Amino acid sequence: MSVRLVSVDWGTTSLRLKALDGVGEVIAQRASALGILNCGVRGFAEVLEDELAGLLDGRVRRSDGGFPALPVLMSGMIGSRQGWQEAPYLRCPAAPGDIADGLLTVAAASDELAALDIRIVPGIDTMGGGDGSGPDVMRGEETQVLGATMLEGLSEGVFLIPGTHSKHIVVESGRITGFRTFMTGEVYAALLDHTILGRLAGGRDHDAGGFERGVAAARAAYEAGAASGDFLNLIFSARTRVLTGGLDEGAVASYLSGLLIGAELMSDKSAKGQAMRLIAGEALAARYREAAAAAGVQVMAVEGEIVAAAHWAIAAEAGMI
Amino acid sequence: MSVRLVSVDWGTTSLRLKALDGVGEVIAQRASALGILNCGVRGFAEVLEDELAGLLDGRVRRSDGGFPALPVLMSGMIGSRQGWQEAPYLRCPAAPGDIADGLLTVAAASDELAALDIRIVPGIDTMGGGDGSGPDVMRGEETQVLGATMLEGLSEGVFLIPGTHSKHIVVESGRITGFRTFMTGEVYAALLDHTILGRLAGGRDHDAGGFERGVAAARAAYEAGAASGDFLNLIFSARTRVLTGGLDEGAVASYLSGLLIGAELMSDKSAKGQAMRLIAGEALAARYREAAAAAGVQVMAVEGEIVAAAHWAIAAEAGMI
Repeated sequence: MSVRLVSVDWGTTSLRLKALDGVGEVIAQRASALGILNCGVRGFAEVLEDELAGLLDGRVRRSDGGFPALPVLMSGMIGSRQGWQEAPYLRCPAAPGDIADGLLTVAAASDELAALDIRIVPGIDTMGGGDGSGPDVMRGEETQVLGATMLEGLSEGVFLIPGTHSKHIVVESGRITGFRTFMTGEVYAALLDHTILGRLAGGRDHDAGGFERGVAAARAAYEAGAASGDFLNLIFSARTRVLTGGLDEGAVASYLSGLLIGAELMSDKSAKGQAMRLIAGEALAARYREAAAAAGVQVMAVEGEIVAAAHWAIAAEAGMI
Repeated sequence: MSVRLVSVDWGTTSLRLKALDGVGEVIAQRASALGILNCGVRGFAEVLEDELAGLLDGRVRRSDGGFPALPVLMSGMIGSRQGWQEAPYLRCPAAPGDIADGLLTVAAASDELAALDIRIVPGIDTMGGGDGSGPDVMRGEETQVLGATMLEGLSEGVFLIPGTHSKHIVVESGRITGFRTFMTGEVYAALLDHTILGRLAGGRDHDAGGFERGVAAARAAYEAGAASGDFLNLIFSARTRVLTGGLDEGAVASYLSGLLIGAELMSDKSAKGQAMRLIAGEALAARYREAAAAAGVQVMAVEGEIVAAAHWAIAAEAGMI
């Protein structure tokens, strides 16, 4: 069983390596919290060496201890200004071929890595539209979306990748034609930790009833035609519903979470009634499914080796394998 | 020149006392940062004694050092659970007569204060409407609005009191019929201090160009029909416009401020094309006027002794003077 490609998903706070065999199947994997912000003084080259050694576990190693000629494809924040080497953004619309053409080759920083063919997938930017959406940027999500289109056999759709910065990405004719970032996760944390809304919040455990009521509040506002500035009013209800006896303190955090996720889901009109394709880990996917159900929005989870599938396809297109 | 009423505006972080003569004119005043959160171990009674002594400056004092029988009317957070004594909320709609009937008499806590007739104006609450607006509460703003209607001779209008928690208050037939809180000031600070948006912000000085561009971004989103969840996307432009070279780091804070204030102003449809009456200190009034001009919203500042005028009228209605 030989390794044909190493797929590296290197984000801000996590690092995931997967070894793919000759048909693109994952035959070994390794994950850690060694995201680009957590590599400290060791540096990216040393971290990659150690993680690769752990991943490959003697499978492929030259007699002198260095790694053999093997393609390594990385995506995520490793290609940002704070990462290993900055991979300039590709401009929307971007097709898989554009991404393969835009790979950045990393100059190996050590003897051990010298024989590897290490490349980074570029991020994508957009200048935004005339609809008030601004310019936007992403790194890593373009790869997830490409992988999802491949696994699902889709050439059209709206993909939703929730998180600290939730991304809504539109694919038309197989190309990424636009996307928007919603600061849902980060705003949730800032509101709860650094505004008066946190004062009456009695814990962060998930409270299904509170969450659903938050989504319902977002939905009622949406259906009443609430504008973006109404958000600043809507969130205050996480305090006043407690003061007026309608919400338990233990449900405040979940109420606020439901309110934000519900508002995020309903504001996206790009799916035009089709189901949005949800790409998320289990816990977050569960929240977004709950919110979608209460908000009357269709979502459908995409599962599988999304990043590995994209890396395999891009590596093939770029002639790395 | 004798003092007929002492007007006390006692908020979270400030305390303002005014002595009114027999026709309700302000003849002496005193202001400090001794809001209810800043009174510490001294307690409210002692702070009031000292501030009253300073305000009246020997004008009215009994031979034993106590204050004579004099009406003292207070409004603001002093009537909250964290204040001196909790004055239960009145429910909307509330007329001036309801407020006068709802005054809470404070049991004097010291010999010096024993002869005074000290009362607190109740706050107002609302259960919200079917339009997605939640329940809401205010303390102090009801008094400002009453004063403004008196100074301007109005019985109808939408009043805007900006700040950490900006209040939009609707008056119909001389009664407060509804209001909403927008967390504009507090969300601005939380976003700038505790999210990624602050990382590229190069200072807080007012940048008129950046501010206006923020308002314009809010306006473009509004005109494109942005919903409340789009707020979570809109704010991200305070980062991406810097990354893509369109905004200077020194203008980020003002851009974000313009974006939030612009969004707040445009989301209020209750004024129905009439000018909103703006009640604010000089600096904040200037920002809101700038934002309103750029957003195409009408505002008109109300100036004068708003709180004193309201206290005078309420005291008369309640038979205190």
